Amino acid sequence: MEFPSKLIARAVEEMSRLPGVGKKTALRFVLYLLKENNETTRSLTGALAEMRENIRYCSRCYNISDEEICAICNNPRRDKSIICLVEDLRDVLAIENTSQYQGVYHVLGGVISPIDGVGPDDLNIGPFIDRLRNSGEVKEIILALSPTMEGDTTSFYLTKKLKDLDLRITTIARGVPIGGELEYTDEITLGRSIITRTDYRG
Amino acid sequence: MEFPSKLIARAVEEMSRLPGVGKKTALRFVLYLLKENNETTRSLTGALAEMRENIRYCSRCYNISDEEICAICNNPRRDKSIICLVEDLRDVLAIENTSQYQGVYHVLGGVISPIDGVGPDDLNIGPFIDRLRNSGEVKEIILALSPTMEGDTTSFYLTKKLKDLDLRITTIARGVPIGGELEYTDEITLGRSIITRTDYRG
Repeated sequence: MEFPSKLIARAVEEMSRLPGVGKKTALRFVLYLLKENNETTRSLTGALAEMRENIRYCSRCYNISDEEICAICNNPRRDKSIICLVEDLRDVLAIENTSQYQGVYHVLGGVISPIDGVGPDDLNIGPFIDRLRNSGEVKEIILALSPTMEGDTTSFYLTKKLKDLDLRITTIARGVPIGGELEYTDEITLGRSIITRTDYRG
Repeated sequence: MEFPSKLIARAVEEMSRLPGVGKKTALRFVLYLLKENNETTRSLTGALAEMRENIRYCSRCYNISDEEICAICNNPRRDKSIICLVEDLRDVLAIENTSQYQGVYHVLGGVISPIDGVGPDDLNIGPFIDRLRNSGEVKEIILALSPTMEGDTTSFYLTKKLKDLDLRITTIARGVPIGGELEYTDEITLGRSIITRTDYRG
């Protein structure tokens, strides 16, 4: 696509850097902003700029937080002896949504991915080890990373790092989703769900 | 979703105003910007703000243009006697991509849509009529609006406005897409394609 304006071309180019956004979608965003009044764009760019400049992370779990210590870490009713390791804020929100978890989190900020140039030092792994060493109360680590090559690599790296600490290391159950049909489940998941079968609770 | 930071909540809220973007996608965009360095966000917000403040439209056809008169209107090889009426820049780009059209355009900037509060006066229809009256050379108007309720309403409104001018008014052909199968074409399109059948060119 050749745009009749350099301003449009640059805006589309920038917008199409967002994940999952191609040139066509970016142009759709840009034309929307042009149709709306200037205030819409000012409000959007203001919110993004302010967020990027002033964002803070909980100094304990590295989740995004407006305070020094986030609301979850600060909640006296959360069980500080269990830490759930997740990739980013989305996973925290997803797990919080289930209302099934009463422990705390540690946000890695990504997974090890040599292709994208992300090594262990780019993640909040060092602070996590420090956190474990400084706090005597942690008993269990739940590895809740995505079951991808990168997630599995990161989980493996972490278990090696953690092996001299006296901790129970668990991972979230993988299996056939509730409501999912056996015949449509991929072999690896179905195979794993048989190997890791649990006692029937009728 | 309850976000642990007002900065995130506001950024997600603003991003989810973009067309086709829900809260989840907006959060994905926002987390991407947080993962990248500050420069990425500055570059994005800068491009959008600059575009919105400084965007200009061709004073003849109302297409987006960095110049007073756009490259298409200014091109001496384009046929000024045919004007193709389109909704916005995307349609211009789509038609230009075909390399089949040598005339010029007029960009309406939308279609009549009472539900969205868009009336004829919100579109570049007045300037279009003025353009036709002031230029004696226009012979044909091609209505190339989407075949939706709003597009058809706008086309109907325009034909009424244009009826006392001595012009050929055409519309782009509707029919079975090339490569499309008859049996999967909806009845209205197929019906129209029979009524407006053309001579066979073998």
